[in-house]
Amino acid sequence: MSTSSRRPKLRVNCFSVSLDGYGAGPRQDLSNPLGVGGMALPEWFFPTRTFQTTVLGAADGARGIDDDFAVRGMAGLGAWILGRNMFGPIRGEWPDDQWKGWWGETPPYHVPVFVLTHHPRAPLVMAGGTTFHFVTGGIHEALLRAREAAQDKDVRVGGGVATVRQYLQAGLVDELHLAISPVLLGEGENLFAGLDLPKLGYERTEHVPSASATHVVFTKRAT
Amino acid sequence: MSTSSRRPKLRVNCFSVSLDGYGAGPRQDLSNPLGVGGMALPEWFFPTRTFQTTVLGAADGARGIDDDFAVRGMAGLGAWILGRNMFGPIRGEWPDDQWKGWWGETPPYHVPVFVLTHHPRAPLVMAGGTTFHFVTGGIHEALLRAREAAQDKDVRVGGGVATVRQYLQAGLVDELHLAISPVLLGEGENLFAGLDLPKLGYERTEHVPSASATHVVFTKRAT
Repeated sequence: MSTSSRRPKLRVNCFSVSLDGYGAGPRQDLSNPLGVGGMALPEWFFPTRTFQTTVLGAADGARGIDDDFAVRGMAGLGAWILGRNMFGPIRGEWPDDQWKGWWGETPPYHVPVFVLTHHPRAPLVMAGGTTFHFVTGGIHEALLRAREAAQDKDVRVGGGVATVRQYLQAGLVDELHLAISPVLLGEGENLFAGLDLPKLGYERTEHVPSASATHVVFTKRAT
Repeated sequence: MSTSSRRPKLRVNCFSVSLDGYGAGPRQDLSNPLGVGGMALPEWFFPTRTFQTTVLGAADGARGIDDDFAVRGMAGLGAWILGRNMFGPIRGEWPDDQWKGWWGETPPYHVPVFVLTHHPRAPLVMAGGTTFHFVTGGIHEALLRAREAAQDKDVRVGGGVATVRQYLQAGLVDELHLAISPVLLGEGENLFAGLDLPKLGYERTEHVPSASATHVVFTKRAT
């Protein structure tokens, strides 16, 4: 039995959405990991100290509102859950073990990462503490395994859109931080279509605009 | 022939949209002119000096970013176009001439207002310079008549969602100012669904967040 008084959360953080509700553009592939036009979505994130130092290995980066949210998004995490399309561009059966994610030899997770897929694959141990586990049993199994791995820390759903939508629809996400990017995509994967977040119990608890994005946090009402 | 060197524009200003893309909530009626939950959309607008003085008749109101956009939205207008649902809650044939809009005896337009409807009705002359004209020939006829009335001034499409969508889809709107309200509606009339604004030639030309809304302006590329 855990002695912690704080129940660990399932969180979505720093999830970038266009003004017209798209979390990714259309036609995702190796050269367009976020779909055509989709790289405009996290433009607020790229200059941040968090991205610059943890992903690019730079000495420093921009601080301020955007970085504050980026820092919060990384704090207190014991595991991640990713949809397969966020892990890579390969669809269907894994042809081999060559693809190891978008992030090089040392991914910026440093904890176990559970990748949703229909196709089994052996765990992939990377440098820096990240291990990719491939889960074929669906979102509930992935969450169970991620919670177990995270123990009294939080689990973060990294994306993509379809994965975040599934966890929201199932009412499993405790906290949802969206960064609304001031761009229109016109087409792609819509986060909100057919998803009634107020009806699912989500209330806005924060609203902090920056020069690059509008940050909003939604918290699920206790039921 | 006009001697003005500036081509008058068709504008949408101060159009409030939720984070999930709704410009109105569901089930619009007399007590919910913007649909259930919809009154949260223009919350940024209500405290402004523009709303307080021109609609409520107060002596003053809040200035700043939100009011700057409200002022711009009212400047240089020679005519308005409204969808019928924005004019009132009555559907179908006009039962009589009792309904004169939501705005009392002196509506805040002070110029000719062209109301789209399938049901003919005689023009309605109000105090303060507003005349409501009822147009049964569709959006192009309404625009033609509004441009004629406005002469070298701009025409503004006031709403609602369906009317704005029609003018955008037809590529007729020159400038679109949206105020993204930090709320979720979950259901209602979606501004963006099926509308590919980048493909229609709209580019973001301004992005100004305030404490209450994220203001974004899109301008149609000259074709």
